[in-house]
Amino acid sequence: MNAVEIGEPASGSCAGSLHGFRVRVYYEDTDAGGIVYHANYLKFAERARTEFLRLCGIGQDAMRTENGIGFAVRRCVVDFQAPARLDDVLEVRTRLHGVKGARVNAEQWLYKVMDNKVEHDWCVRLKLELASIGRYGRPVRLPERVRETFKMALVT
Amino acid sequence: MNAVEIGEPASGSCAGSLHGFRVRVYYEDTDAGGIVYHANYLKFAERARTEFLRLCGIGQDAMRTENGIGFAVRRCVVDFQAPARLDDVLEVRTRLHGVKGARVNAEQWLYKVMDNKVEHDWCVRLKLELASIGRYGRPVRLPERVRETFKMALVT
Amino acid sequence: MNAVEIGEPASGSCAGSLHGFRVRVYYEDTDAGGIVYHANYLKFAERARTEFLRLCGIGQDAMRTENGIGFAVRRCVVDFQAPARLDDVLEVRTRLHGVKGARVNAEQWLYKVMDNKVEHDWCVRLKLELASIGRYGRPVRLPERVRETFKMALVT
Amino acid sequence: MNAVEIGEPASGSCAGSLHGFRVRVYYEDTDAGGIVYHANYLKFAERARTEFLRLCGIGQDAMRTENGIGFAVRRCVVDFQAPARLDDVLEVRTRLHGVKGARVNAEQWLYKVMDNKVEHDWCVRLKLELASIGRYGRPVRLPERVRETFKMALVT
Repeated sequence: MNAVEIGEPASGSCAGSLHGFRVRVYYEDTDAGGIVYHANYLKFAERARTEFLRLCGIGQDAMRTENGIGFAVRRCVVDFQAPARLDDVLEVRTRLHGVKGARVNAEQWLYKVMDNKVEHDWCVRLKLELASIGRYGRPVRLPERVRETFKMALVT
Repeated sequence: MNAVEIGEPASGSCAGSLHGFRVRVYYEDTDAGGIVYHANYLKFAERARTEFLRLCGIGQDAMRTENGIGFAVRRCVVDFQAPARLDDVLEVRTRLHGVKGARVNAEQWLYKVMDNKVEHDWCVRLKLELASIGRYGRPVRLPERVRETFKMALVT
Repeated sequence: MNAVEIGEPASGSCAGSLHGFRVRVYYEDTDAGGIVYHANYLKFAERARTEFLRLCGIGQDAMRTENGIGFAVRRCVVDFQAPARLDDVLEVRTRLHGVKGARVNAEQWLYKVMDNKVEHDWCVRLKLELASIGRYGRPVRLPERVRETFKMALVT
Repeated sequence: MNAVEIGEPASGSCAGSLHGFRVRVYYEDTDAGGIVYHANYLKFAERARTEFLRLCGIGQDAMRTENGIGFAVRRCVVDFQAPARLDDVLEVRTRLHGVKGARVNAEQWLYKVMDNKVEHDWCVRLKLELASIGRYGRPVRLPERVRETFKMALVT
């Protein structure tokens, strides 16, 4: 089997300051109501934030190992407007709103994708307040390099 | 093995209009950061709401089968103040705030329990807007019986 | 609210060498097929093993912190005979079969519970090979105290 | 934002009768031990089987809606040889072994991928017995079209 033929897990892509990343809905994500279990949208959103960081050159595992720093969600406001179902493709769009000290604000929208077209209205929207925390759970300033990277993502 | 000896899964209990329910943190709930993965607090909260309904005599499976009605989360605002860890016991406290048409508002707080004492400060707080929805995802008025039950929970 | 009234999360109980522990099926455990998602039975089984250890006086978090030791599943054979659904209560029965060096063998059965009666036939059965592993993932002999506790559980 | 630039969720690819599909390990997949929680490998494997079916032109949601048929895992034997960690890429390889009546046998291996190279030894291996089941959970013969598709996958 030629490994090169198999698609790498996607990291999404950036257009200006907006990052887009697609996920597929599997059985594991759904519940007996036939739709995606509400808490699982937060998982999709977190995958997208991770890939956004990866595209910015920030590996979370390295950041945790080298700097002892991780991101924690401090607050999230989630609006659920329409349900996603088994086999759906969702596009998660992520935008940073502000970076200050140990705090990052972000907004994310999940859209259904049909025939490779993103639908006009979002299904789920998240407004997030994240904090960079150190080994003992205390907030710590973001490493200079990371803060600069984020600021560039804000400007473009 | 005497089946009676084994504790039933708890339904929690009500004191006035406040429902309390305890959960244990297992490996499945934690992540590589050593703490409970943020989206999993929403699962704990949903377990507590389910048990609150059960104590009120409302079985969600029966409601879905007989009335074709389920509850959907429309909006949640989640504040994360302190992390829970493996083996922790958490108490989820649930209070209804309003019932109107197809809409229910609720607030939930998760507290750590140490030596059977509930800590003073909450770890996680959720403010929720729930809707009763019918077979096709449209909002439908809550059945009279359910609305009455909820209103009694509000008064006491 | 009187915290004492609220049931603690159950640890199950032992009758001879057989441990019993009950779990409730919530929305989070089900999938769009209307039944419990197959991988989630492994979570129920792991919760039961954790509570079995707790009843034996073995806290996994303490074991990890003090001895740097954790349990890893090396092999599991899972037979799925009948599906569980939303709102079902399941009893997980756990029996140890052998303890040797770093290795523990166990068998677990999940039964449906109706009106507090355990059904005759199991839904899911697991045969497990567990290993105690150290900080770097290498197998390490179980601490003497733990091995003795397990051997007592085997004899009775 | 140009939707076309964003990678679709991958479906993997087939080389002969072997299907390959890659997944990324996120925080949600890990536990406090710092590694992937054992039950979550079963989720990765199920994603891969779903994508294998999709590549074969078999949509599980359509199959369920049109034919009232779904796949259920009857038995799985899982060997865990090495743990995966946060940020790892895993390749799931799937091979069908036999299709008969309502039964399908399959084998799956999960390998770590480093610098786009698949490691020599697998981390996790699954041997599965699947059954096609109808609306009431009874085994039903696979639709002719699906059986033919599977047989072609076996021959090549």
